[in-house]
Amino acid sequence: MSQHSTTAPAKTESLIQCGMVCFVGSGPGDAELLTVKAVRALEAADVILHDALVTDEILALANPEATLVAVGKTGFGPSTPQDEINRLIVLYAYAGLRVVRLKGGDPAIFARLDEEIAALELEDIGWTIVPGVTAASAAVAAIGQSLTTRGRNASLRILTGHVLEGFAEQDWRSLSRPGEVAAIYMGKRAARFIQGRLMMHGADPTTPVTLVSNASRPDQHVLASSLGTLSQDLAEAELHGPALTLYGIAPRAAASALTEIRKQEVS
Amino acid sequence: MSQHSTTAPAKTESLIQCGMVCFVGSGPGDAELLTVKAVRALEAADVILHDALVTDEILALANPEATLVAVGKTGFGPSTPQDEINRLIVLYAYAGLRVVRLKGGDPAIFARLDEEIAALELEDIGWTIVPGVTAASAAVAAIGQSLTTRGRNASLRILTGHVLEGFAEQDWRSLSRPGEVAAIYMGKRAARFIQGRLMMHGADPTTPVTLVSNASRPDQHVLASSLGTLSQDLAEAELHGPALTLYGIAPRAAASALTEIRKQEVS
Repeated sequence: MSQHSTTAPAKTESLIQCGMVCFVGSGPGDAELLTVKAVRALEAADVILHDALVTDEILALANPEATLVAVGKTGFGPSTPQDEINRLIVLYAYAGLRVVRLKGGDPAIFARLDEEIAALELEDIGWTIVPGVTAASAAVAAIGQSLTTRGRNASLRILTGHVLEGFAEQDWRSLSRPGEVAAIYMGKRAARFIQGRLMMHGADPTTPVTLVSNASRPDQHVLASSLGTLSQDLAEAELHGPALTLYGIAPRAAASALTEIRKQEVS
Repeated sequence: MSQHSTTAPAKTESLIQCGMVCFVGSGPGDAELLTVKAVRALEAADVILHDALVTDEILALANPEATLVAVGKTGFGPSTPQDEINRLIVLYAYAGLRVVRLKGGDPAIFARLDEEIAALELEDIGWTIVPGVTAASAAVAAIGQSLTTRGRNASLRILTGHVLEGFAEQDWRSLSRPGEVAAIYMGKRAARFIQGRLMMHGADPTTPVTLVSNASRPDQHVLASSLGTLSQDLAEAELHGPALTLYGIAPRAAASALTEIRKQEVS
């Protein structure tokens, strides 16, 4: 991908009705789980600032003339500071380029979207949001289950296991009640912490806990565990890549659930 | 759309790796918010059983030879009983047809997916799931906000306001605490009930509550309200169509948030 000319393209050329910056959800990883709107934004972009979680298969859909800038943040690895990401978005937008800020999953869920929008607003730069398929939806589809089920749960919690300061403090007491269901983002490294908190509040150790790493990708992996055995199962499984933790949901047992998910091994 | 021949097409013709039945999320309504995989499933389907919430614009993407069957359920209007939906899915799959069960939003969230899968499993019919963009993601994008924000909320509740038996009983006590954020599905008619429950538990009446009806569609409408004035504001606004209630989130004030959402009126 080459550096694009800094000539500002006519706005009417844009295939999507964007402001100067378009925040785009790339979905869980499978390029076919991009929305049509996201594909068009990638094709129309001059510059794409993308997360580490965005796959090469997705980046290959970009306009070949577009400049790709990796601004990855990983929980415990090398990362681009948020201020630097904000600065880059503003810089490219000021140059008159069509900027796509490509985020894994949905930009509204644990993606620090507000901070980036705030930076644009300070500079009076327009923006728009293209929602995406969030990791929880892909993870639960991979195990043939729903996030909500009549008679089981009419509510769902979406949590993060990890915040800037470390492991996230959550309302573990409420979550420890029977029948509660949660999709926990960035919960893999916090697993022992979450397990401890929930069991301290009396959660049933037989509560199913399922981790889906690389949901929807060729290297998808499912770890079927339980609250009581979570740390040990995780230590033995050595899951790689981003993982979504489904608390209170076990993989569907029936073999037919595996029709499409033959990519994965069910541990 | 015509009745399709009942000759079973070769499975290798399928553009997506489907079982006999493919559960597909149609996203919030804008056809461009379908995933690429969903579009391919619609193009490859022999029969599409679709919810009432699925728009004509989306159905127009179906294979012109495909049979379209409306199996809509509306909270308070005419509806197809779940047993009848299950029966139809099984019937078409048995006929050797490529069946798409098209559901509004994401099939894993308040879509009774498990009941339909259970019906297929009884008959040993294969199936797969294509996740979609859920209404909460589209609604919050429409008001230029995130569902989670650093320093505001590291968790989110996804609730339904309406279950089969009537208004849903939820953990209103937890939700009434300061700083809690929820995306409430089917909450419009339950608004007075939800307002009452939350205020009874001491929730702050100035908590922002935003309703987005027909999120992502040309008739999208945003109602910016607060917990204390919700019933009255709703009565005056007369929102039509499916609405997502965002509890604890106000629309972003800045005008630049309206770059793309000029379709909507901010009340």
